[in-house]
Amino acid sequence: MKSYKEMTKEELSALKADLEKQYTDAKGKGLSLNMARGKPSPVQLNMSMGILDAFSSDVDPITPSGVDTRNYGELIGIPEAQRLMADMMGAPYDNVFVFGNASLPIMFDTISRSYTFGVLGSTPWCKLPKVKFLCPVPGYDRHFKITELFGIEMINIPTNSDGPDMELVKKYVESDDAVKGIWCVPKYSNPSGITYSDDVVKAFAALNPAAEDFRIYWDNAYAVHDLYDDDKDELLDIIEECIKAGKPNMIFEFCSTSKISFSGAGIAAMAASKENLAWVKSTMSVQTIGYDKMNQYRHVLYFKDINGIKSHMRKHADIMRPKFEAVLECFDTELTGLADIVSYTRPKGGYFISFNAMPGTAKEIVAKCKEAGVTLTGAGATYPYGKDPEDSNIRIAPSFPDADEMKAAAEIFVLCVKLATVEKLLG
Amino acid sequence: MKSYKEMTKEELSALKADLEKQYTDAKGKGLSLNMARGKPSPVQLNMSMGILDAFSSDVDPITPSGVDTRNYGELIGIPEAQRLMADMMGAPYDNVFVFGNASLPIMFDTISRSYTFGVLGSTPWCKLPKVKFLCPVPGYDRHFKITELFGIEMINIPTNSDGPDMELVKKYVESDDAVKGIWCVPKYSNPSGITYSDDVVKAFAALNPAAEDFRIYWDNAYAVHDLYDDDKDELLDIIEECIKAGKPNMIFEFCSTSKISFSGAGIAAMAASKENLAWVKSTMSVQTIGYDKMNQYRHVLYFKDINGIKSHMRKHADIMRPKFEAVLECFDTELTGLADIVSYTRPKGGYFISFNAMPGTAKEIVAKCKEAGVTLTGAGATYPYGKDPEDSNIRIAPSFPDADEMKAAAEIFVLCVKLATVEKLLG
Repeated sequence: MKSYKEMTKEELSALKADLEKQYTDAKGKGLSLNMARGKPSPVQLNMSMGILDAFSSDVDPITPSGVDTRNYGELIGIPEAQRLMADMMGAPYDNVFVFGNASLPIMFDTISRSYTFGVLGSTPWCKLPKVKFLCPVPGYDRHFKITELFGIEMINIPTNSDGPDMELVKKYVESDDAVKGIWCVPKYSNPSGITYSDDVVKAFAALNPAAEDFRIYWDNAYAVHDLYDDDKDELLDIIEECIKAGKPNMIFEFCSTSKISFSGAGIAAMAASKENLAWVKSTMSVQTIGYDKMNQYRHVLYFKDINGIKSHMRKHADIMRPKFEAVLECFDTELTGLADIVSYTRPKGGYFISFNAMPGTAKEIVAKCKEAGVTLTGAGATYPYGKDPEDSNIRIAPSFPDADEMKAAAEIFVLCVKLATVEKLLG
Repeated sequence: MKSYKEMTKEELSALKADLEKQYTDAKGKGLSLNMARGKPSPVQLNMSMGILDAFSSDVDPITPSGVDTRNYGELIGIPEAQRLMADMMGAPYDNVFVFGNASLPIMFDTISRSYTFGVLGSTPWCKLPKVKFLCPVPGYDRHFKITELFGIEMINIPTNSDGPDMELVKKYVESDDAVKGIWCVPKYSNPSGITYSDDVVKAFAALNPAAEDFRIYWDNAYAVHDLYDDDKDELLDIIEECIKAGKPNMIFEFCSTSKISFSGAGIAAMAASKENLAWVKSTMSVQTIGYDKMNQYRHVLYFKDINGIKSHMRKHADIMRPKFEAVLECFDTELTGLADIVSYTRPKGGYFISFNAMPGTAKEIVAKCKEAGVTLTGAGATYPYGKDPEDSNIRIAPSFPDADEMKAAAEIFVLCVKLATVEKLLG
């Protein structure tokens, strides 16, 4: 198909008229589809219902390690859950704390703790004139909302197909002691779906930060979320790399079972050096007596070990794969005329496809989709302050609708992409 | 029996020799009993095991209100749990947020939110030269630890049998705009077991604080924790009183099911005005996508409504009552010679008995008990900074040991009280 870019004004106008007609028809269908958030579908959630039966009243509530999961205490989690989550992250098990139902509050609390009390004896961030965070873009909107709330200045870092631009990261981290952290989703990244290469992970471990309280916020949210059993991305263990590089304290790693068991009722964990964890504990012991150990044990009883999680995730993949493929097939088929204008990722796992529209059209595409009954993540959301300087990136979240709905939604989406692009080209 | 105070030095010395012999015998028994914390006993926890079966895989995970409890969302809790917790606090149900497994982190987060972001548009506390909190004493050590961690100056307020000294509270709150809050456990208080009178509650509502961001932290932890079915303390609803007084924003109320269902795996709630809750939500929406709604629903399915909770708590009372009575009977019988020296409370509910030893002996009593195998809450813990100016107050927590163990522990305790008192009197 002829590229839109090579079309004459007349050809574009004719195309526009045709697309507008299709768009009017599409609106008439009264669709109501949501691709806004990375929400597991009911089918996936149904697969986890056995977790509820794993811890019934006839199960001994005392763990093999001797903890009464019903009572107070065990601030850092039950040992059995520490091991499960450690294996998921590939971290040593005594470097892992297990928390409540989600990792986002752990990250929030880590920022809040640094802001109020300072990291391991460093000046509390609230006492500093300026604190900065590096934000590989496009990235996860909820990360950016946290740093924005605390008044932390966010600096965009472009992301390549193997991870963030590490030369730029190195430049900022090593020259500016106001740079206190970087947000990373290193595997099946949100939203690009890429996984950091070994070289990128090693470049992270090799950083010599200007600030002693600089930390890498390693949100390993999609550690076991492969789509293909025979074609998985592998992520190097950054904790080990940081130890090797003599900087064990430089890394905070986070994970959860939100997209494994239940999104609202999973368990979450943090891996870090013993010094970092002692620091976490120093104020966490005032914040809480302990997280929900019964839910931790429920997960252990059901999954047993990392192999239980992996076989469970293969069932998830069978549900997710057709949705990703439906979207990508639609894009591949429908967007040939825009091949030199738009681009999109082909993730091997995770929850998202990242779509780069013609600069200056993302907001318009999202608005057009909305009008036709397809809700997308807001344009700009994948950038700090909700501001995509190119107005180009759109996050596609194919998990919640079923495969047929996903196909219908993708068809609306490509139609809106075409129409917005033609409108833009016509000026 | 003759009062210790009326004894001659010779009589006291003879008594001391006898008590020392008893103490040596007691130590020889090799006891190991713990009355340090308000932990429910396994027998109580066993009574709640049915909660685990109430939400099994064959139960519809969608609430009658239409929420899929397994997925993300519903930041403020499921409506069914809001109603349950509202009824427990006696608060209007749309003034209630339901959170995670404990109320302590809600209180911590409320302080932290005020410190970092300021209360409803007021200056963040971290930007102020001085922030003060009033602390009715004796009080709950974990409250004091929170305010201490944030560098908040704590001011002791004596507690009478009907609540804090309200004249003093009024003086501080109305004259000093650095006073931003007061910690209260208004019913079956920790540790005294007293309940605030209607007059005290009304005096709270009538306060005209110098600081616009002054809040009453009303930790209603023992709202339904009566020991006697026919002799319960009744607490006036402070939220309604504050509304009547035209100060709906002055109150934050907290509660949980930690001492109803499971101490580590209950649900917790906060009641406040709509403006206050909107403020909570403004930063909480960045902190989390939502708390564990499945556990909220599990509680709703099991207890059904407030009557379910009340009948459950009558079973708890049957377990707790004999322990309180064993302690008090031992005190009444054994401490006749110290009737003009020591005092203790006779709570109708809650988890604690507050014991006032002869000034200057509390630390010594706790140390002596420890040596004889009975662990108590550290002396001083019931005061801010862990400093009881009189070295007199000891918190007795009779919930965890069984009634026989409790009796044995109480016997050791009175022996140590007698011995420490005699030693003190001998100088």
